[in-house]
Amino acid sequence: MSTSHAAHPDRLLPADPATRDIARRLLTYVEDLPIISPHGHLEASMFVKDEPFADPTTLLISPDHYLTRVLHSAGVDLADLRVGGTEGKTPREAWRIFASNWDLYTGTATGYWVEQEFEHVFGINPDRLSAENADDIYDELSEILARPDFRPRALAEQFNLEILATTDDPLDDLADHKALAQDPTFSPRVLPTFRPDAYTKMYNPGWAEKTTRLIDVAGDGKAGWEGYLQAMRNRRQYFIDHGATSADHGTHDTDTTPLSHEDAQRILDKGLAGTATLAEMRAFEANTTYRFAEMCQDDGLVMTLHPGVYRNHSASAQKKFGNDIGADIPFQLEYTRGLRPLLSDFGENKDFHFVMFTIDETVFSREVAPLAGYYPAAYVGAPWWFIDEIDAMNRFRSLTTGTTGFSRYSGFIDDTRAYCSIPARHNTSRRVEANYLARLVAEHRISETRASEIIVDLIDASPRRVFKL
Amino acid sequence: MSTSHAAHPDRLLPADPATRDIARRLLTYVEDLPIISPHGHLEASMFVKDEPFADPTTLLISPDHYLTRVLHSAGVDLADLRVGGTEGKTPREAWRIFASNWDLYTGTATGYWVEQEFEHVFGINPDRLSAENADDIYDELSEILARPDFRPRALAEQFNLEILATTDDPLDDLADHKALAQDPTFSPRVLPTFRPDAYTKMYNPGWAEKTTRLIDVAGDGKAGWEGYLQAMRNRRQYFIDHGATSADHGTHDTDTTPLSHEDAQRILDKGLAGTATLAEMRAFEANTTYRFAEMCQDDGLVMTLHPGVYRNHSASAQKKFGNDIGADIPFQLEYTRGLRPLLSDFGENKDFHFVMFTIDETVFSREVAPLAGYYPAAYVGAPWWFIDEIDAMNRFRSLTTGTTGFSRYSGFIDDTRAYCSIPARHNTSRRVEANYLARLVAEHRISETRASEIIVDLIDASPRRVFKL
Amino acid sequence: MSTSHAAHPDRLLPADPATRDIARRLLTYVEDLPIISPHGHLEASMFVKDEPFADPTTLLISPDHYLTRVLHSAGVDLADLRVGGTEGKTPREAWRIFASNWDLYTGTATGYWVEQEFEHVFGINPDRLSAENADDIYDELSEILARPDFRPRALAEQFNLEILATTDDPLDDLADHKALAQDPTFSPRVLPTFRPDAYTKMYNPGWAEKTTRLIDVAGDGKAGWEGYLQAMRNRRQYFIDHGATSADHGTHDTDTTPLSHEDAQRILDKGLAGTATLAEMRAFEANTTYRFAEMCQDDGLVMTLHPGVYRNHSASAQKKFGNDIGADIPFQLEYTRGLRPLLSDFGENKDFHFVMFTIDETVFSREVAPLAGYYPAAYVGAPWWFIDEIDAMNRFRSLTTGTTGFSRYSGFIDDTRAYCSIPARHNTSRRVEANYLARLVAEHRISETRASEIIVDLIDASPRRVFKL
Repeated sequence: MSTSHAAHPDRLLPADPATRDIARRLLTYVEDLPIISPHGHLEASMFVKDEPFADPTTLLISPDHYLTRVLHSAGVDLADLRVGGTEGKTPREAWRIFASNWDLYTGTATGYWVEQEFEHVFGINPDRLSAENADDIYDELSEILARPDFRPRALAEQFNLEILATTDDPLDDLADHKALAQDPTFSPRVLPTFRPDAYTKMYNPGWAEKTTRLIDVAGDGKAGWEGYLQAMRNRRQYFIDHGATSADHGTHDTDTTPLSHEDAQRILDKGLAGTATLAEMRAFEANTTYRFAEMCQDDGLVMTLHPGVYRNHSASAQKKFGNDIGADIPFQLEYTRGLRPLLSDFGENKDFHFVMFTIDETVFSREVAPLAGYYPAAYVGAPWWFIDEIDAMNRFRSLTTGTTGFSRYSGFIDDTRAYCSIPARHNTSRRVEANYLARLVAEHRISETRASEIIVDLIDASPRRVFKL
Repeated sequence: MSTSHAAHPDRLLPADPATRDIARRLLTYVEDLPIISPHGHLEASMFVKDEPFADPTTLLISPDHYLTRVLHSAGVDLADLRVGGTEGKTPREAWRIFASNWDLYTGTATGYWVEQEFEHVFGINPDRLSAENADDIYDELSEILARPDFRPRALAEQFNLEILATTDDPLDDLADHKALAQDPTFSPRVLPTFRPDAYTKMYNPGWAEKTTRLIDVAGDGKAGWEGYLQAMRNRRQYFIDHGATSADHGTHDTDTTPLSHEDAQRILDKGLAGTATLAEMRAFEANTTYRFAEMCQDDGLVMTLHPGVYRNHSASAQKKFGNDIGADIPFQLEYTRGLRPLLSDFGENKDFHFVMFTIDETVFSREVAPLAGYYPAAYVGAPWWFIDEIDAMNRFRSLTTGTTGFSRYSGFIDDTRAYCSIPARHNTSRRVEANYLARLVAEHRISETRASEIIVDLIDASPRRVFKL
Repeated sequence: MSTSHAAHPDRLLPADPATRDIARRLLTYVEDLPIISPHGHLEASMFVKDEPFADPTTLLISPDHYLTRVLHSAGVDLADLRVGGTEGKTPREAWRIFASNWDLYTGTATGYWVEQEFEHVFGINPDRLSAENADDIYDELSEILARPDFRPRALAEQFNLEILATTDDPLDDLADHKALAQDPTFSPRVLPTFRPDAYTKMYNPGWAEKTTRLIDVAGDGKAGWEGYLQAMRNRRQYFIDHGATSADHGTHDTDTTPLSHEDAQRILDKGLAGTATLAEMRAFEANTTYRFAEMCQDDGLVMTLHPGVYRNHSASAQKKFGNDIGADIPFQLEYTRGLRPLLSDFGENKDFHFVMFTIDETVFSREVAPLAGYYPAAYVGAPWWFIDEIDAMNRFRSLTTGTTGFSRYSGFIDDTRAYCSIPARHNTSRRVEANYLARLVAEHRISETRASEIIVDLIDASPRRVFKL
């Protein structure tokens, strides 16, 4: 351990001494529990190949849009960070830019995760990060990454990773997942997640080709909307056969109004012909959300929904760097009316698990908690993306628990592309839970005994129960 | 007092020792003040009959949708809790379900109220609630409920209940209120509240029959829209003559656009003929809101408004159990533009008291506090329903006070159907106020002397002043 | 210093003793720094004339709608406070009304500023304010205002005012600014700010006359839309030549959709002819917002935007007292989709500084911080107007910093018409920053060394950097 605040055992715990003591005790119940990650964006192939990571920049910077967006906002060209396959600078030069701008990260969630990674994964004092030390640290990290105990599988063991879900296209053959499941030398469960977004958003380039191919390949010879539904059912079953327990849906908005099969067929035809209106495209997407919920009633997959993100907000940046570069911005939505068709029809089924994510904090107390506090199917998704942040996570607890208690919570979701940030993210979540529960104990709202049961349930039992793991 | 945290004298007070000391001192000024409850859902007949409560389940569980929705979200059939007159289980069996699931309530507002009831009303340690003790506690409670000091009137005395408002249909004869007012042996004031919602929402079943009857019975022989207005005026006066000081309006949204009498007549005719469009129905409701405010200028009733709830969200549950079963979900609204017609015309009248409730916390700092901080007629309603919750009540103070100070606050509203929760709810409110004020004192933002004046004003003077009690 | 809490050196600092100690130390780094005020509503002429202030009411009450709205909500007639040039009471009588109602201000942001002014500007213990002492204090203040050291220039020195921006009409000749800049005896920089709202809102009375005059006077002889754009470019350059660094835009909403020049010309013609629809008027305004951003690419003015206020909500009050009397109410908006045309086209330019203000706290974490955390041009504006309040400022930090860090912040904006409140407002901001940073240090999230760098950056460097001062 270094002398950095990042190494302090009380980091993130409340300042009041009596409350901090309670939080410390609560944390001991969960700090060493295995990591369960039911939603994220790593590749299963990483564990199959188990190759050393290329270099510090390729591992830590270029693929992590949480991190590159901070530098970009300060005027750094994304190409200089090698985002989206660009090569404006060498990895070492990109690293120097990052190290020189390390001060920008103070106070950010990303900065906190990165310093935890340095301190607790790589054993490097994060306070050393600076323009002056950039090359030294780059060299140290390069050496570390070359060591056998820093390959993906070895790190999984070091991280105490028990379950990791990936996010996969419905037509993925899941060969990597199969290989891992059959490998007796690899103990973590790496599960696929069914993510059909590419086939529901007519308004995205390539939708028609993909959808035609899906129906052709998996529709059992049926055509049109019937073939579409059949293909989805078949591929969901394929995913289930390969260990999937959930399907993830990044919808544009919350609309779940079902269409008659005639209307769905009509819009599908127009979409394939390139003549659908935007309103029809949105109606088509809303209908698929409803239909996927309907499929869950039969096949038992957990359904996760995360609407409300304006993707690729900067047109010029999208042209240069493609998608997923950090230019996605939340917008406002309503859940109560949007989700009503789906929940009114399927929400009373307690075997259906429907997890509502949001990046709009305002819906937690107004809509998401009231829905999850009534419908047996509905669960409050962990704060995610922009609100996967220490203060926001504290607010989340306060905004939902009074209405739902602790039992309607999805468990923590890291949602990450940054492998080495996983321990820091989960540890953050555990500290935040300890922080919140300690306050309730200090305010004589719950007993410490009950708090110690709850923290274990939140960290360990909730994700297993909600994601049927 | 038991050893439960529910018995702790410092419950809900802040953890910091210096701030807690201030809060403790502030609490002494208000903890024993009488209870003033200007809005709720109890029946006046309860006090007229003064019969023993039937059994623990009928008293505490079946009618309290705050409580049954938690069990329902965990997969319990509402029929097994005897909701809406169903009888899936016996009262004792329903009680066992509740006791076995007591852990679900940890951290919820409802759980906090229930444990306070057990501890402070029934003298039973709430930590004993469990599957094992379910029958024992049921028997103990049954014995308690049979005692004469646990009948409604005796409890009113024990609760130190000074004023309780009920919520009543405009055509109610208010015989029970009259009987209570004339009974020299009963000291609390039980006031009716004029609640005309059943006659303003054309889109609800039964509206046409009810409205026809209202006009026939109370319209002084006038027909149509003129008769409608006259009937409302007459019945308001009848309520005032029976002690009412306020009229309550649970509108769909915040729209208060007035219609010309010609348009109102036209839509009324279409509504009675069953041919009005949804837009017309909404316009009719908005117009009634405006007209009720207009009537207040003459008759002086306080007007309370609480829009923004999607009622009976689950169609299947409504079919089985009827309304008011906990499937009501807030949705998002805007107050600034919606209320403008009403406030721009009547808001400058300081003798008109218009209390704006919301269950959307986001409108407190953005709209409700700025409106109440300008218009002499406008008051900030206490956080209500889903946000009648400890943390939410703390947030409420912080979200409104900087703009409005303390003088524009309605006073606490318990809004309850659960008689025995009344002391716990009001006590919670007093502790939350002590908590907030203690922080301002500790941060040297106000003096402790001033804080002690304010807390008495908030708890005792505010509801009397705002509700003209 | 008096014995009032307003004199306490720890006012606004956190109650926890360890955190308070940190906050105290952080505050020492910034408490005596000069005041930089890049946006406000004082008149440059005040410093040119340097006359004594007329009387306490004219200085402190009548022009400050933050203050008069509190009294108005309590039923005081604005005419009795001499608002908008009315003279319902004499200045001394108006003062008595204020003093008698001093209790209403407890807990408000305004109350806090006023008591700071009394304590720290006038040396009067604010606890003395009451009906009884009203005349005494009025007399004491009158004597103070007659002293030479309480004239505008002397106060500027006492306040340690380094930079003050005014808000000016594009056709203002800026003679006062010029006079001040050329006066070697006056050291503060008093800068004009280009505020073209009167020429963008077709829906406001007088728009056509003003716009015609603008084009005639400054359009280089060009007519129509071409003349409009040319006039704006010319006047912006005139402002730049007189020291302006920013242009301020109080738009109705966030829409920034550009129009073709043909459409702009067409709507301009209809507007001048009085035949434009409301939708066209809004489209015209949105287009001007886009075009002003376009001009910034060339002339380098900083652009500040503050949409979402319903102006003059009370029609009757507007008729009597005019605009800017405190009847402006925030309403809800979306930034993500509204600002997309502007940010997608200009947001990647790091030399363009675009500051997004809001009075809707809900957009901070959902929209404003994610936008500012990506676009090099986008900055998070300080919490402003109704949310320029102690608790709201604390929430602001918590809602934005996790996403943006500290580097995307505009610096504090006092936005005031109340000259003597400037030190209190800036001091409040410094204490709030110390409070927030101290918590991060106490929770081992940042080091105290780093916190001490950040607080200086926030208070001093941020406004200079963002406003190009």
